[in-house]
Amino acid sequence: MVGKFIGIGVGPGDPELITIKAAKALRAAEYICVPKSQVHKPSMALGMIKQILEERQNPAEIVELLFPMTKDEMNNRKLWSENAAIVSSKAKKGDVAFITLGDPMLYSTFLYLYEYIKETFPGVEMEIIPGVTSLTAAAARAKLPLAEREEVVTIIPSDLDPAIIEETARSADNLVFMKCAYRIKELIPILKKAGFTKDAKIALVKRCTLPKEKVLVGKLSDAENWKVKKDYFSVAIVKRSQVPIHWKKNGEQA
Amino acid sequence: MVGKFIGIGVGPGDPELITIKAAKALRAAEYICVPKSQVHKPSMALGMIKQILEERQNPAEIVELLFPMTKDEMNNRKLWSENAAIVSSKAKKGDVAFITLGDPMLYSTFLYLYEYIKETFPGVEMEIIPGVTSLTAAAARAKLPLAEREEVVTIIPSDLDPAIIEETARSADNLVFMKCAYRIKELIPILKKAGFTKDAKIALVKRCTLPKEKVLVGKLSDAENWKVKKDYFSVAIVKRSQVPIHWKKNGEQA
Repeated sequence: MVGKFIGIGVGPGDPELITIKAAKALRAAEYICVPKSQVHKPSMALGMIKQILEERQNPAEIVELLFPMTKDEMNNRKLWSENAAIVSSKAKKGDVAFITLGDPMLYSTFLYLYEYIKETFPGVEMEIIPGVTSLTAAAARAKLPLAEREEVVTIIPSDLDPAIIEETARSADNLVFMKCAYRIKELIPILKKAGFTKDAKIALVKRCTLPKEKVLVGKLSDAENWKVKKDYFSVAIVKRSQVPIHWKKNGEQA
Repeated sequence: MVGKFIGIGVGPGDPELITIKAAKALRAAEYICVPKSQVHKPSMALGMIKQILEERQNPAEIVELLFPMTKDEMNNRKLWSENAAIVSSKAKKGDVAFITLGDPMLYSTFLYLYEYIKETFPGVEMEIIPGVTSLTAAAARAKLPLAEREEVVTIIPSDLDPAIIEETARSADNLVFMKCAYRIKELIPILKKAGFTKDAKIALVKRCTLPKEKVLVGKLSDAENWKVKKDYFSVAIVKRSQVPIHWKKNGEQA
């Protein structure tokens, strides 16, 4: 193998939130893999690196890889294996970058391919360049701290079962729901059942740091009246209170 | 006020993991605040932006702010109030950047000052530029995914009480312990009590992406024999298994 397979986090949306290291790797790689959920849908990650690619003297070869989000595991594995074979064949000729929104190690499409290549093509050298996640970018835009002092933060993928969300929330201080806008209304009663009061702070950030970004911040009781359109790119942060849950349990604070 | 107060995450350690946006802000700000825990200790965050500052045509004024890590709340509030007054007075003349390792919204020194300024100097405009956290940077270096599919991730500040860590770990899939090297040996029996088996995967990353970085990856049973020197800059990632805990509970998977 001549080249490496490099997973690159391009951050939450704003092209300036790409790291210097990621920009360098994107200027140098011979091949740039772009994950797509549908053939004819433009890739948001590719749009974010447009300027970096335009500044290149020798253009990179863009390799579109299809990752439809289905529950058909058989078909998924077939596609990953095909995509892995493509990456491996390109890596024989030069560095292969794979761009991913946010960070490659946190709920990314990259991970499926990564694990598959590790198993099937052990000769391919791999590198991972971390990126700014939507977790902290949303906290920055909402101006709501993700965690202070002894607070515990729990990150929940939003398509979990309501009973599991409730159980998880019960012992949590601060919660982050990834990709949640389609069910924010549904989450509020779950949070109430888990002991979050109507005064608990909540922020919903849609299309964080992107054009048409929407930031809503308020109390849980406000959020019931928020008019929220569905959007895949959305993060919610919920904070139980100013006081971590275990302080109350230990009686350190009322 | 002429200037803004800008909280800037400079990432986990490697100066190339600074974002393009952060670098731009650091080249433009009139004042750059550097948090220090001790007067005579060099600031790691300042070291990371050295090259960016050297490339400036007009040098910035470096403002050292002392944030000793003590439990003396009275004294702490006095220092925050003094630091807030310094920031506010500088903001009358130009942009004031405040650099923080990792991200400003996640367990940072910036947050204390931020909340204080918000309360006491409501006229100061504020901006937050997110950064790459040690969470995902450690996952990248250890090549251990932080979360896939339906896994829940729980972030634990390591100085929590063992009983609280155990309770939190009991309902968690993947755990991240922040700044944990000084008690990694102590964490292993807690994790076992919380139902993590000896085959659970664990990674310990010290001085992530910095010179003299150390990455240890193995099973919980291996970690008992790791020789780990104390180091403030350390993150551990622990993964319960390949299967999220709620799958087992629901009987979906054995």
